[in-house]
Amino acid sequence: MPTSWYNILPDLPKSLPPPTDPDEGQSRLKRLEEVLLAHCLEQEGSEERWIRIPDGIRELYEQAGRPRPLIRARRLEEKLKTPARLYYKAEFYSPTGSHKVNTALAQAYYARKEGYERLSTETGAGQWGSALAYAASLVGLELVVYWVRAVYKWKDERRHFMKAFNARVRASPSKHTEVGRGLLKEDPEHLGSLGIAVSEGLEEAGKDPRTIYCLGSVLNHVLLHQTIIGLETKLQMEMVDDYPDVMISCLGGGSNFGGFVLPFVADVIKGRKIRFIATQSEAAPNLQGEYRYDFADHAELTPMLKMYTLGHRKKMQPIKADGLRYHGAAPIISLLRHEGYIDTIAYPADESYVFEKARIFTTTEGFLPAPESAYSITGAIDEALRCKETGEEEVIAFNISGHGLLDIEAYREKLGI
Amino acid sequence: MPTSWYNILPDLPKSLPPPTDPDEGQSRLKRLEEVLLAHCLEQEGSEERWIRIPDGIRELYEQAGRPRPLIRARRLEEKLKTPARLYYKAEFYSPTGSHKVNTALAQAYYARKEGYERLSTETGAGQWGSALAYAASLVGLELVVYWVRAVYKWKDERRHFMKAFNARVRASPSKHTEVGRGLLKEDPEHLGSLGIAVSEGLEEAGKDPRTIYCLGSVLNHVLLHQTIIGLETKLQMEMVDDYPDVMISCLGGGSNFGGFVLPFVADVIKGRKIRFIATQSEAAPNLQGEYRYDFADHAELTPMLKMYTLGHRKKMQPIKADGLRYHGAAPIISLLRHEGYIDTIAYPADESYVFEKARIFTTTEGFLPAPESAYSITGAIDEALRCKETGEEEVIAFNISGHGLLDIEAYREKLGI
Repeated sequence: MPTSWYNILPDLPKSLPPPTDPDEGQSRLKRLEEVLLAHCLEQEGSEERWIRIPDGIRELYEQAGRPRPLIRARRLEEKLKTPARLYYKAEFYSPTGSHKVNTALAQAYYARKEGYERLSTETGAGQWGSALAYAASLVGLELVVYWVRAVYKWKDERRHFMKAFNARVRASPSKHTEVGRGLLKEDPEHLGSLGIAVSEGLEEAGKDPRTIYCLGSVLNHVLLHQTIIGLETKLQMEMVDDYPDVMISCLGGGSNFGGFVLPFVADVIKGRKIRFIATQSEAAPNLQGEYRYDFADHAELTPMLKMYTLGHRKKMQPIKADGLRYHGAAPIISLLRHEGYIDTIAYPADESYVFEKARIFTTTEGFLPAPESAYSITGAIDEALRCKETGEEEVIAFNISGHGLLDIEAYREKLGI
Repeated sequence: MPTSWYNILPDLPKSLPPPTDPDEGQSRLKRLEEVLLAHCLEQEGSEERWIRIPDGIRELYEQAGRPRPLIRARRLEEKLKTPARLYYKAEFYSPTGSHKVNTALAQAYYARKEGYERLSTETGAGQWGSALAYAASLVGLELVVYWVRAVYKWKDERRHFMKAFNARVRASPSKHTEVGRGLLKEDPEHLGSLGIAVSEGLEEAGKDPRTIYCLGSVLNHVLLHQTIIGLETKLQMEMVDDYPDVMISCLGGGSNFGGFVLPFVADVIKGRKIRFIATQSEAAPNLQGEYRYDFADHAELTPMLKMYTLGHRKKMQPIKADGLRYHGAAPIISLLRHEGYIDTIAYPADESYVFEKARIFTTTEGFLPAPESAYSITGAIDEALRCKETGEEEVIAFNISGHGLLDIEAYREKLGI
């Protein structure tokens, strides 16, 4: 297992545009500094290429089953009759079902070290809330999760899963914050939004010095923690004496994609050749949006980040791969996209195409992927079929960021099984 | 990863009483011979101590994530303040959620090798059906599962999970067999039983030479395949230079318990000292029944096996740990129990005691166990607390045979979360 995370900031082809604040008093930037953990804030702008993973976090990573396997997809190759060699990283072997534990454990560890007793956060699809519930439980912290009411009502099992780890889970908007109370006064059945849930999480942390807020994607330090995925993959590729020509993963905010590819982007900046493909949904093809400064949340509580964005108040149709439904891509990924390092493809929003590909993967390789990961698989299968046509023996590496065991209902609906 | 399975038959303190048939024509014994795979039938009575795992099965085990970790439960030890050292085997890191894949992959591999095109089986809790659906899909065989209607109707997600692997899943009794049609004529809403489902699976295989029947527990060859668990555990214990004083697992028919302990029982037969504890429910405390010949199924289609039994038509109240609800224990385990090698404890059938223990495990170690595995955990915690009282630094090893991600509703109900 790697002993350091890889920080791409000093190696980027251009320096990363900093967050800005349209407010004259810079209140948003100040709030960001106040709500982030000191360790994470330092990592957010660090120019150190390698940041040592504290022993305590390495031990937590081991407890969570790291390192995770890189698997040669021989059965899938045979099924597709492709000359390509396919490898997938098995992030689905996670106690909560996704790669989100990689940063949840780091943030919970730092919070404990910095003397906090409680964490607060928001969650949309529920993967981040589950991962932080797990991490908080392991290091002995309390957790309050504000969960977008529309999803809270629907995903019963994931809610009880978080509660099994003793998390407090509140439908957002809630009665527990001023923001929430105001919105409930207008509409007692308000279905909420990720932006509102962020506001409630921030308010919760702001009013109690024992509580700190945690974030699950987009920011630099989150991508930093996730580089454990790509660093392991690199070592595992070396062990089988192979190297990718193409790397593929799905992208919502960018944490699994970034974690998987950034250690390889470093090689490409130095002159090696890899195609990086971010797979998305036409419901939220943020990498095909505009590259400009935009807010990270609906309610404009965060500073503005320079990123590919669809607009922070863009309405996006519901899809099963809810984790891909975000208006903007992480600033690091956005810069790399702008500089021509990253390709993207968006699949139709009805999702039958990606679910059929997920089924091919499930019946050959034996693992039921998360709906989000079905997009990684679809990209990999499409590339493998291209190689079949051209006869190219390319090496295609893709990341399966989560399992679908809590999403079986989505499979039933989409596959008609 | 071990290269052979361990066959305890030649090492047993007494020779294993063979199956018998009260029918003069021995029709049941003949049927058993006809429906079992040739390789499994040979293994069933083999006197070879080590049976090589074919390369093809080893490759399938690797694909399924073997070897699986043995984890030192340091957080649980701290929580309990016990001087004991606790280790658990992580069989929950399984593509379908349980240890059942260990024999499912072996049987599917042999079936393919022997030229069959289809498998048939029954399932009760659904773990065995899921594992065989997975295995059949990977080796390229069709599968028909007869699933006790009472459970079929209730566990939607597990049903769709099997179907994602292309299994045909039929509520039993069904219209597809004579046995089923007869019972449906009497009662169109018949809820079925494991015995009826067995009959339908057997009939399905009997009428089609392309189809072979597979079994998920009780028989010697199933326990043989499961010894991969204990053999790995033994190697992993050696790597940390430790050795168990106590070994604990839950027991329904006996496949996970047997697989975990039999390689260590071999040491005890040679003079080492280990206490083996099978944890059960008061709803089905079969190891506290009578040691005698009894049928393995409700409908008396199987030969009689010498085993600890509650009687093959015993009514047993429903519990969440449905996999423990079986009237008899595997003949090998029963003999060892009779000879004094194995202790047992049965926990109250309302299950609140075991679910609370499962929660302690979840919040400290981070893994949500299957309801059945909650019984292993309860045994381990009780032993650890005993050590706390006596001050003994014992080594306690236990097996977590499955995860609870498809059983969250049971947790909600039992824990009131």
